[in-house]
Amino acid sequence: MALVVQKYGGSSVADAARIKRVAQRIVATKKAGNDVVVIVSAMGDTTDELLDLAQQVSPLPPGRELDMLLTAGERISMALLAMAIANLGHEARSFTGSQAGVITDSTHGKARIIDVTPGRIREAVNVGQIAIVAGFQGVSQDTKDITTLGRGGSDTTAVALAAALEADVCEIYTDVDGIFTADPRIVSAARQIPRISYEEAMEMAACGAKILHLRCVEYARRFTLPIHVRSSFSSREGTWVVSDPNFEGNVMEQPIISGVAHDRSEAKITVVGVPDKVGEAAAIFRTLADAEINIDMIVQNISAAATGRTDISFTLPSADGTVGVTALKRIQGQIGFEKILFDDQIGKVSLIGAGMRSHPGVTAKFFGALADAGVNIEMISTSEIRISVIVGQEDVDAAVTAAHRAFDLDADQVEAVVYGGTGR
Amino acid sequence: MALVVQKYGGSSVADAARIKRVAQRIVATKKAGNDVVVIVSAMGDTTDELLDLAQQVSPLPPGRELDMLLTAGERISMALLAMAIANLGHEARSFTGSQAGVITDSTHGKARIIDVTPGRIREAVNVGQIAIVAGFQGVSQDTKDITTLGRGGSDTTAVALAAALEADVCEIYTDVDGIFTADPRIVSAARQIPRISYEEAMEMAACGAKILHLRCVEYARRFTLPIHVRSSFSSREGTWVVSDPNFEGNVMEQPIISGVAHDRSEAKITVVGVPDKVGEAAAIFRTLADAEINIDMIVQNISAAATGRTDISFTLPSADGTVGVTALKRIQGQIGFEKILFDDQIGKVSLIGAGMRSHPGVTAKFFGALADAGVNIEMISTSEIRISVIVGQEDVDAAVTAAHRAFDLDADQVEAVVYGGTGR
Repeated sequence: MALVVQKYGGSSVADAARIKRVAQRIVATKKAGNDVVVIVSAMGDTTDELLDLAQQVSPLPPGRELDMLLTAGERISMALLAMAIANLGHEARSFTGSQAGVITDSTHGKARIIDVTPGRIREAVNVGQIAIVAGFQGVSQDTKDITTLGRGGSDTTAVALAAALEADVCEIYTDVDGIFTADPRIVSAARQIPRISYEEAMEMAACGAKILHLRCVEYARRFTLPIHVRSSFSSREGTWVVSDPNFEGNVMEQPIISGVAHDRSEAKITVVGVPDKVGEAAAIFRTLADAEINIDMIVQNISAAATGRTDISFTLPSADGTVGVTALKRIQGQIGFEKILFDDQIGKVSLIGAGMRSHPGVTAKFFGALADAGVNIEMISTSEIRISVIVGQEDVDAAVTAAHRAFDLDADQVEAVVYGGTGR
Repeated sequence: MALVVQKYGGSSVADAARIKRVAQRIVATKKAGNDVVVIVSAMGDTTDELLDLAQQVSPLPPGRELDMLLTAGERISMALLAMAIANLGHEARSFTGSQAGVITDSTHGKARIIDVTPGRIREAVNVGQIAIVAGFQGVSQDTKDITTLGRGGSDTTAVALAAALEADVCEIYTDVDGIFTADPRIVSAARQIPRISYEEAMEMAACGAKILHLRCVEYARRFTLPIHVRSSFSSREGTWVVSDPNFEGNVMEQPIISGVAHDRSEAKITVVGVPDKVGEAAAIFRTLADAEINIDMIVQNISAAATGRTDISFTLPSADGTVGVTALKRIQGQIGFEKILFDDQIGKVSLIGAGMRSHPGVTAKFFGALADAGVNIEMISTSEIRISVIVGQEDVDAAVTAAHRAFDLDADQVEAVVYGGTGR
């Protein structure tokens, strides 16, 4: 008997009708002979509605109380889902993060899981019950206060519980069929990826693909837990995220590029005229770190010998733009740079593929495709299995489309690959 | 330093504006030099909305899951209230029933409190924090599942916590100024009662006065905990519920009748032609008890010697009418009674007053007043400090008004009493 962990997001349980449909899918999985543990997010817009209420009573609510408030969302969806399953004649029990043994640190709003002790979940499963667990939430080890895990928290709950329960698979249900080679809203010829490695899925998550969160894939990789990303609206196979996507009969040649990701949520700050002295860049990035801003790409121009000054550009989440600029202006006198430029009309386009390790010339081909499409590159950053460029936001669609076609990812180009080797 | 426990109902925290106003009142109490523990209900219609959602996914949801669902309501209101207090510069922490140490049995939907271990609340108060506790909920001793206390549960939470914390007073905030001599919507001359005994408040609760629930007053009496019922919309003194309302300088003569209560939520069943044999009535009421129906008043006519048969009438909550009639029809053959009559167009009017103990003739005066008003009495029931009659539902207003005037309760009749002896 396999143990299947399923995670359903907010759009899958947005109303009573959807909750009933999800209940049917869960019962079908149980009837197929599996033990089932389900992680569920808050219904549709519940979290936003609760945040709005919080804003109405306090402009800056304490983190502990905000977490207490938001965790009401999953409490509602999980109880309703357990009722819907009971109504189908199967026994289901809902558990809060705390009851499920999701132990975290005390960082309200973005707590990290430090232990999972799912004794009550195991007991429920052992007596044949379907366990429904609130995603996104836990309880702090030190203060016994309720915490939330922050963005992507429900996926992380699912993977962490699946790992602790030694589940056979963690199924992440979403409103699309899986992970695609590019956003189908931009590239109509984009294909669903049947299998992908943890490393590639992590790069895609980091580069703006919204299906899986980085933390959740990191967690799964650490425990070599297979993730199956699939649609809650169909029974089709989705995308398997595994250690070695070419294992088990998937013998056809690995594509060089697995997918093209893009991200419009970043902005660029350029610090102009930084004195080219030891420690100036460090002071800039220390200031940003103290403001809790995560920097993505960094480019430093070669110092113009004549002036002894250099420009430093970096990207950061657009939402942090104001805080970042303000923090830097505060140290302008101390550093002595000339000015700050801020640009939130940028986009990041990334090629991801483990195959590029063994294929030289990927960068040249990528840049050539962008040049042919008339797209100007502002910044470049690479890893072993990724190449990212910053372009003007208006060029993102053209860049994604050009890259997708240049690397033979369009559906008409690779039909044999697409429909071979799915499944597990 | 006094310890004040305050309870705010759903209408007091129905929206963000009201939550902020309640926060101001709490902070004022704290600033006046008191330690403050607050019990809060779910916002306005939240509970009804959650029940509606439950009905949409399951016609008969399991009690455990329904409790899990409904407890989300107080979680939302308590977190928002804590935020609003924090926004006023005071430290507040919210606690679920479980965190506050409200230990119950496992009867989902109407759990009974079996222990209160408010260690975390004491700790919070000791370091100067305002503790906000979810009303209506607890955790079962045996299964560690979340439970709810049923109707009036938040009041009971407040009194139970106040008793366990040895609070100086439990303030119950509501949307009226206190307990009245009659429902002001019926008797415009009704007055607010400044002080009332536990026993009278219990009789009033049992007879349909909606301000305080029976369980909560019972609990307060057991611990001799003073309850102060008052309005969350004004700072006026409300009604004190205490052991001896004539103590401490309230030396004026006690009124014979403290108040007139009424209740339109009951129905009457008459079992016609019951064979007048030992055990027949017992069989009828055993059947109703097995159906978990609470019987209120019972009248058995004197047996007609000629027929050897008798009629048995009793009242029960209207909502249980169908279940009661069905249960009785099932034993009709066994008992051999002739037929069942069901009437939900009745009302109960009750006089309550510890003073009637020492004043003979109350019953005669009450019945005389009803007769003068043209009200026919269908059933009668009495206790040491109460007389209740069942009348036609259309006669309830006339009966309440007549009784209120007959016992000199109208405001113009007793002004001296009303405005004397308030406070504590």
